[in-house]
Amino acid sequence: MSLPVSYSDIEAAQTRIHGRAMRTPLIPAPVLSEQLSARVFLKPESMQRTGSFKFRGACNALMAAGVAARSGVVACSSGNHAQGVAEAARMLGIAATIVMPADAPEVKVARTRASGASVVSYDRASEDRDEIANAIVDLDGAMLVHPYNDPKVIAGQGTIGVEIVSDLAAMRLAPDVVLVPCSGGGLLAGVSLAVTERAPNCRVVAVEPAGFDDYGRSLRADAIETNPRNSGSVCDALLAPSPGALGFAINRERAGGAVAVPDEAALRAVGFAYERFRLVLEPGGAIGLAALLSGAIDVRGTVVVILLSGGNIDDQMLARAIQIYRSS
Amino acid sequence: MSLPVSYSDIEAAQTRIHGRAMRTPLIPAPVLSEQLSARVFLKPESMQRTGSFKFRGACNALMAAGVAARSGVVACSSGNHAQGVAEAARMLGIAATIVMPADAPEVKVARTRASGASVVSYDRASEDRDEIANAIVDLDGAMLVHPYNDPKVIAGQGTIGVEIVSDLAAMRLAPDVVLVPCSGGGLLAGVSLAVTERAPNCRVVAVEPAGFDDYGRSLRADAIETNPRNSGSVCDALLAPSPGALGFAINRERAGGAVAVPDEAALRAVGFAYERFRLVLEPGGAIGLAALLSGAIDVRGTVVVILLSGGNIDDQMLARAIQIYRSS
Repeated sequence: MSLPVSYSDIEAAQTRIHGRAMRTPLIPAPVLSEQLSARVFLKPESMQRTGSFKFRGACNALMAAGVAARSGVVACSSGNHAQGVAEAARMLGIAATIVMPADAPEVKVARTRASGASVVSYDRASEDRDEIANAIVDLDGAMLVHPYNDPKVIAGQGTIGVEIVSDLAAMRLAPDVVLVPCSGGGLLAGVSLAVTERAPNCRVVAVEPAGFDDYGRSLRADAIETNPRNSGSVCDALLAPSPGALGFAINRERAGGAVAVPDEAALRAVGFAYERFRLVLEPGGAIGLAALLSGAIDVRGTVVVILLSGGNIDDQMLARAIQIYRSS
Repeated sequence: MSLPVSYSDIEAAQTRIHGRAMRTPLIPAPVLSEQLSARVFLKPESMQRTGSFKFRGACNALMAAGVAARSGVVACSSGNHAQGVAEAARMLGIAATIVMPADAPEVKVARTRASGASVVSYDRASEDRDEIANAIVDLDGAMLVHPYNDPKVIAGQGTIGVEIVSDLAAMRLAPDVVLVPCSGGGLLAGVSLAVTERAPNCRVVAVEPAGFDDYGRSLRADAIETNPRNSGSVCDALLAPSPGALGFAINRERAGGAVAVPDEAALRAVGFAYERFRLVLEPGGAIGLAALLSGAIDVRGTVVVILLSGGNIDDQMLARAIQIYRSS
């Protein structure tokens, strides 16, 4: 069956975003390798331009759109996609309007504005962000960039998978397990497609916040399921209501299961990354590390890559995470 | 004239510490490349085991010593060398005693203890740390590892230079400028030796805190000069009183000058790295970045590597640095 995104779409994305997106390093982590009796590598997309992987997909979508994006771009996002779109638009000289929930982390709102985007705020409980966004599209002729249900966005995120496999190959290694923070499933789709194309036996595992495990349930049921809530986890980047259809068509073929991790473990992982690697992560970005540290997945004897997907954390939340780690 | 450390000593160190020290990544930084009209790369030794480059030299010295280190090891350090020696000793099953000033950053003392070392505290103003350390050597038969005036330590730090040149070569590049935080000059010596061996025209520049510019003055005078003070900079890792003789013999041949940077600029660079790369650095570790951001050195059109030498910063100091960056 043909998938909605192909490996060559990812290669095209790689060519397009080269020199604009950061080629983040793949970092061997001897501290974790010893602790877990595995060969563990970190892929810190937290270092990516705008502090998360989202810049890749946004940059690919805007560049691929060409003239279709010249009248401006609009996006709905609690933060990381917002920043990714805003910064890609700034670099390409395109006006951006971002529809953000009123409870989005302050740091994400500030950084979105810093890229020159207009921010339109809405109330998660009483307003429909898609309606607001569509009104802007109708009014301005702006192009809407969906955070995950878009083939160009998925292809952009997939460039991470190509880099992982290439960097391991340069060390004569191949991945056995790749842990991917998962919300709408666009990152998972891009990475699972790219990685399994070149390492067919690798398990690309979705990691979700406990209580927001729609992706795991959907994969097990082989049908799209929905979360009962849309707020209430510290992993603010991982609260999409249900899997996007395009990504799900890929992930049901290519992903290797899912695990769910409690908030406390995600925060402890943020503290661990801060203390042991001097990396700043947000809880949703550290959830793959949390899955390993909390023993949710057994990786003994394997080559493991932890995708650290973002680092946009408020100062107070970081302080809380460090405190939890130090007192545990 | 023959230098006290050779390139093959560095290659031997590389073989010795392989798999124990982290091979830190060389990370292209498009944000800085645009801002500075150069090709800028980061070498984050802040991610190294124990949070600084010091682990490399300590590990090489202890492993090379073999049985001579079995009765224990002693080191004098305000923090980063302390942690490096303590952790290398722990991994090799050697008892470690660290002589630390009473005003060393809390986080550095705590992390030294966490590696299982005994910490002996002294007062910078009234006590002589070398006397204390020598008494332990006499009493226990322990081996003293000097933080910089030791050929094995210099060779260990030099492995960073080999990695920089190799990683650039894989991208068909060679370094034009490498910025190295400088105190006693051991890191500078190892890196300048390794880099100029393979890229003879590269300028390996020492970066020091303003008011503690003994290395720059020594290089210009071609004679060892001393700092007027031994405290009073936020760059607590860069307060050695004067260049070590062994490193100076190398650096007067191989280093490419020195610049001095005020504390405020070092703190602003810590904030910049936190906000833009989600990397946690200490002021002394960020001083090379500070030199670039403050315009102390012109790098337009060149391939530049910023060695980020350490990330052991107290929470309060980090908060202050972020504040300075955000309000500037």
